[in-house]
Amino acid sequence: MNYPNGKKFIKQEQKKNLSIYGKDRGIYSNRGMTLEEDLNETNQYYREKNIAVIHKKPTPIQIVHVDYPKRSAAVIKEAYFKQASTTDYNGVYKGRYIDFEAKETKNSTSFPLKNFHDHQIFHMEQVLKHGGICFVIIRFSINDEIYLLEAKHLLSYWDRMKNGGRKSITKEEIKQNGYFIPIGYQPRIDYIKIIDNFIG
Amino acid sequence: MNYPNGKKFIKQEQKKNLSIYGKDRGIYSNRGMTLEEDLNETNQYYREKNIAVIHKKPTPIQIVHVDYPKRSAAVIKEAYFKQASTTDYNGVYKGRYIDFEAKETKNSTSFPLKNFHDHQIFHMEQVLKHGGICFVIIRFSINDEIYLLEAKHLLSYWDRMKNGGRKSITKEEIKQNGYFIPIGYQPRIDYIKIIDNFIG
Repeated sequence: MNYPNGKKFIKQEQKKNLSIYGKDRGIYSNRGMTLEEDLNETNQYYREKNIAVIHKKPTPIQIVHVDYPKRSAAVIKEAYFKQASTTDYNGVYKGRYIDFEAKETKNSTSFPLKNFHDHQIFHMEQVLKHGGICFVIIRFSINDEIYLLEAKHLLSYWDRMKNGGRKSITKEEIKQNGYFIPIGYQPRIDYIKIIDNFIG
Repeated sequence: MNYPNGKKFIKQEQKKNLSIYGKDRGIYSNRGMTLEEDLNETNQYYREKNIAVIHKKPTPIQIVHVDYPKRSAAVIKEAYFKQASTTDYNGVYKGRYIDFEAKETKNSTSFPLKNFHDHQIFHMEQVLKHGGICFVIIRFSINDEIYLLEAKHLLSYWDRMKNGGRKSITKEEIKQNGYFIPIGYQPRIDYIKIIDNFIG
């Protein structure tokens, strides 16, 4: 195995978490880490090592009712999840604006485009228009493969769908136009290394 | 009532709050707009006119309990406000990373530094280190004056405080080192025009 370190660590994690999460969450989840958690750790690593400053945005919530009990913290008593109008992650790397979304699928041969919604696609278009670096990180959970696909490719597959074409991107297409990201120990998902390939 | 989407509900809240808070919220609030609302409108204008893509981040919430009623949207039944670990606004302008915080004060002669917390100051330091454009928008609500102050100045005033100096920035200092932003109609707070002054 050529993964940068970590292989043993992952196996230990798998054993520990196998009984808790069960098999339906896939191999990846059996080590107790979601894609989001791995990316949060990666971003923390980037910040601590002074490589980049990238954060996940908070989940957008519509707050309807808040209680203000005396002498204790305000309690939100009624709220709803809202659809995000942007992508989940953004920040700065070498002065450049970085913006991405992360998604996983249980499919093994293609990535369904229904994982994105129109607002997010529109946001990515806008980011590209303004010179930002924009991409998606896609994880195939069945075999725990992670790819980075630049937004320009995602947008062309989205257009293909809007013009009556297929509602997914084949894994072959992702392999051809995207970049495979090996899972590491620290950082777990080293996407910045990939970005260096396509920025000047 | 439109929630879970809830847009109308918020507007009702605004109207309600106008009479609750009354005149002590200043001239500005009497037109029913907060600094945050003005900035949101400004950012929307920038997006629509293809000038920049800048959004306010959602308020960070710690979710404790969620109900999943059958055939209707998930309801958050218990949650708490969390302290933000970054600033509130970020995005992209001419390929550059933009990052800022907006604060208002009722003081007339100085801006208290207690409006910021350590995490935010640390975040701004990091953004500057990575070549991002970082600043604060400060509003003196008494006379409705708005200034943009670059983060490098804020950081030096913060250091002065940490070294035993004054716990605020005088308005004179803000006038001297910052930029006055006249309030307009569209966009209301045209901070991008100011940024053009200090980027290459």
